[in-house]
Amino acid sequence: MTSSMIGEIINAIGKDKVLTEKEELACYSYDCSTYKHEPELVVLAHSTADIVAVMKTAHKGKVPVVPRGSATNLCGATVPLKGGIVLDILSMNKIIEIDRENLTVTCQPGVITADLQNAVEKEGLFFPPDPQAMNMSTIGGNVAQDAGGPRGVKYGVMHNYVLGLETVLADGSVLRTGGKTTKDVSGYNLTQILVGSEGALGIFTEVTLKLIPKPEAKRTLVCAFDNLHDASRTVTKIIDHKIVPSMLELLDKTSVNLIQSYVDSGYPTDAAGVLLIEVDGSPSEVDKQIILVSELCKECNAREIKVAQTTEEADAIWVGRRSGFAALSAYKPTVVAEDAVVPRDRLPEMVAKIQEIADKYGMLLPTFGHAGDGNVHPHICFDPRDEKETAKVPFIKDEIYHAALSLGGSISGEHGIGIAKKHLVPLQHSELNLGIMRGIKAVFDPDNILNPGKAI
Amino acid sequence: MTSSMIGEIINAIGKDKVLTEKEELACYSYDCSTYKHEPELVVLAHSTADIVAVMKTAHKGKVPVVPRGSATNLCGATVPLKGGIVLDILSMNKIIEIDRENLTVTCQPGVITADLQNAVEKEGLFFPPDPQAMNMSTIGGNVAQDAGGPRGVKYGVMHNYVLGLETVLADGSVLRTGGKTTKDVSGYNLTQILVGSEGALGIFTEVTLKLIPKPEAKRTLVCAFDNLHDASRTVTKIIDHKIVPSMLELLDKTSVNLIQSYVDSGYPTDAAGVLLIEVDGSPSEVDKQIILVSELCKECNAREIKVAQTTEEADAIWVGRRSGFAALSAYKPTVVAEDAVVPRDRLPEMVAKIQEIADKYGMLLPTFGHAGDGNVHPHICFDPRDEKETAKVPFIKDEIYHAALSLGGSISGEHGIGIAKKHLVPLQHSELNLGIMRGIKAVFDPDNILNPGKAI
Repeated sequence: MTSSMIGEIINAIGKDKVLTEKEELACYSYDCSTYKHEPELVVLAHSTADIVAVMKTAHKGKVPVVPRGSATNLCGATVPLKGGIVLDILSMNKIIEIDRENLTVTCQPGVITADLQNAVEKEGLFFPPDPQAMNMSTIGGNVAQDAGGPRGVKYGVMHNYVLGLETVLADGSVLRTGGKTTKDVSGYNLTQILVGSEGALGIFTEVTLKLIPKPEAKRTLVCAFDNLHDASRTVTKIIDHKIVPSMLELLDKTSVNLIQSYVDSGYPTDAAGVLLIEVDGSPSEVDKQIILVSELCKECNAREIKVAQTTEEADAIWVGRRSGFAALSAYKPTVVAEDAVVPRDRLPEMVAKIQEIADKYGMLLPTFGHAGDGNVHPHICFDPRDEKETAKVPFIKDEIYHAALSLGGSISGEHGIGIAKKHLVPLQHSELNLGIMRGIKAVFDPDNILNPGKAI
Repeated sequence: MTSSMIGEIINAIGKDKVLTEKEELACYSYDCSTYKHEPELVVLAHSTADIVAVMKTAHKGKVPVVPRGSATNLCGATVPLKGGIVLDILSMNKIIEIDRENLTVTCQPGVITADLQNAVEKEGLFFPPDPQAMNMSTIGGNVAQDAGGPRGVKYGVMHNYVLGLETVLADGSVLRTGGKTTKDVSGYNLTQILVGSEGALGIFTEVTLKLIPKPEAKRTLVCAFDNLHDASRTVTKIIDHKIVPSMLELLDKTSVNLIQSYVDSGYPTDAAGVLLIEVDGSPSEVDKQIILVSELCKECNAREIKVAQTTEEADAIWVGRRSGFAALSAYKPTVVAEDAVVPRDRLPEMVAKIQEIADKYGMLLPTFGHAGDGNVHPHICFDPRDEKETAKVPFIKDEIYHAALSLGGSISGEHGIGIAKKHLVPLQHSELNLGIMRGIKAVFDPDNILNPGKAI
């Protein structure tokens, strides 16, 4: 970037919103992935107008721009791979309106996911998407990555909740798509093409999300199995009995043990596989369902079933699950969470394949994830100082995704592509699909200045 | 079309699948809208390969192609406005797989919506979208129009259920998008850009839809009000009490009376407004909800509330609603169902505006629709031989949509744009939005041969 460009931005939005010091830039060179690259400038955007001003300058000078929330993503989506500007939207953190009659919430992109959830729950409403980083992640980032979470099995993911967007485009123009209505058939669904676009089509400045009434009651159980096959086939057994749990998580033995040493969550440490299951709904319905779920677990050879008797007990169980990533860090200095998804009925095969890959490379691949929707996270844990171990990582990773694709799955359920999986995209999508995606990218961003070098 | 092009198609797919007689072409010149234009050729496609062959010839010769299912759409989406080929997909009517473990159904595009619903309900599963033409309409047509229906209020519309598509593109290439997983973040969501694209981006040849478990129980009530304002404000009252009915329909007095003369549905004919409400869920839950809904109706000055005591009573109530369009045809020879949507809380204002427009033009605008999601259908009923009456129609139509847009709504909730509302699109979408839509159209169909002259 030239100093005149930087001057133009400072003139437009003010000096206090622009960071140029070496140590400031370093703070914006990474995210929760393993990638790193420094930007030339960081802008702390406070308004749509700030972003418009930045994009106008960037557009003129063809400077790369990467929007960034809390940078909790795991795929390098917010690393400024080509330098340029990082646009920090954390100051745009207002909840604009909770609309009880239309069951919507409208907010700025920098609102923290958990803050939004708490605010709507105070009104008796519910925003289901629950990425595990929800205490840090932003709504804007969640929209950009089409984030999911354990509740995906019953409630779906971000794209099922995004009704309307205000988006600043590459040339600084402001696009409004969708609104407060769930029905709208008046042209192509631009809102849905923007969800999951990883910052490559535009920068979200306002988001309108669908809400639902908060379920009245919920109950949780923990269930231990002697082998992972029984644990994973229980998932389809439950679904086939017309119960869709609000959360249905699978943990393997290594994960359970690492989590238990990190925080006592009441998990049975000697089991080969553990399921955590929550059902929600009316009080009478959840009581009925938790009994039926217990019976189905038994039929699949569960050897221990514990139904949480208090809210505290249930909370402890879920805190354990949410601590998974942190707990694994105690095992090895670097933990890479992979994110494969397969059709739910192929889960037992996927789990077996992960075990095969782990055995082949002589490394543990602690695995947990959202078994209910076929989305598992095998974790590659390694010490980057150990050259032999480190050398295996890319091979393990590729084998995991080859396995998922061979089972009719996808290379990403909820973490996105970013830098981490760019090379795998052509394995999932044909050249025809990719050509259309590139065409759409060119419609939105002909100069390729928005988050260049990532995803497709 | 030249005779050599027709010969090429006949050679490729066989003579018996190609119609060229004048009277055959006439049958494909119209749909359920008021528009008409004859094609030059009709192809009865039996397979993806048939459609690929047709598109290859059409692509070479730049011949317009319009895909057509049952042609129940109300906006002219299947009228071959520029001649060319009509591609009839009704023979592609197989349900390929009902997958109980993954909660999906995969089918060809010509499957009749109600047939699919019945098939999955036999397995204890549920496909909610219920366009009123569901006994005739096809799944392919429903995807192309992003069809909705009464259950939209609780369960959403087609785009909430489409997981995967096989689509033949303008040049005859076959695009596969999505699949059986609900989570997939591996590039732009091409599936969702195809849903609602009204045949302008591609021709669907296989559809994978999400299913949910069938609700165990449901209950219906009919509720009469002395004015439409009270009837329509009851809608938000119910939602604000955290109940989302599975159907929540509003009918005005004219509609109620015309329906009652057509089929006795037990509606109170002297009320100014009638709500039909269904709640579903577990038996204990629906019993509780129907009582609470009754109380909320009373609080909004309902003067008569009748809860259906048997399945037959409930069915009769809903048959009446589904007969609405037919019933109106007894009133005037031509009935045009308009399709405005507003945020749910603006419904009382929208209903008042429709009344104002009716008064201004001295015509009845019988109105009923999916009040629960703000989607109302005022019906313009006229005699095309009456020049004075007919002359008013375009003005009434435009005033209805100006009203919807001024209340933050849309010019189409579920019927689509087609020919009927093409001129209104620029009122809802900015030139920026339209430019992007045109760009996307050009990516998929650079020669503009798929359903040209419609929508955007």
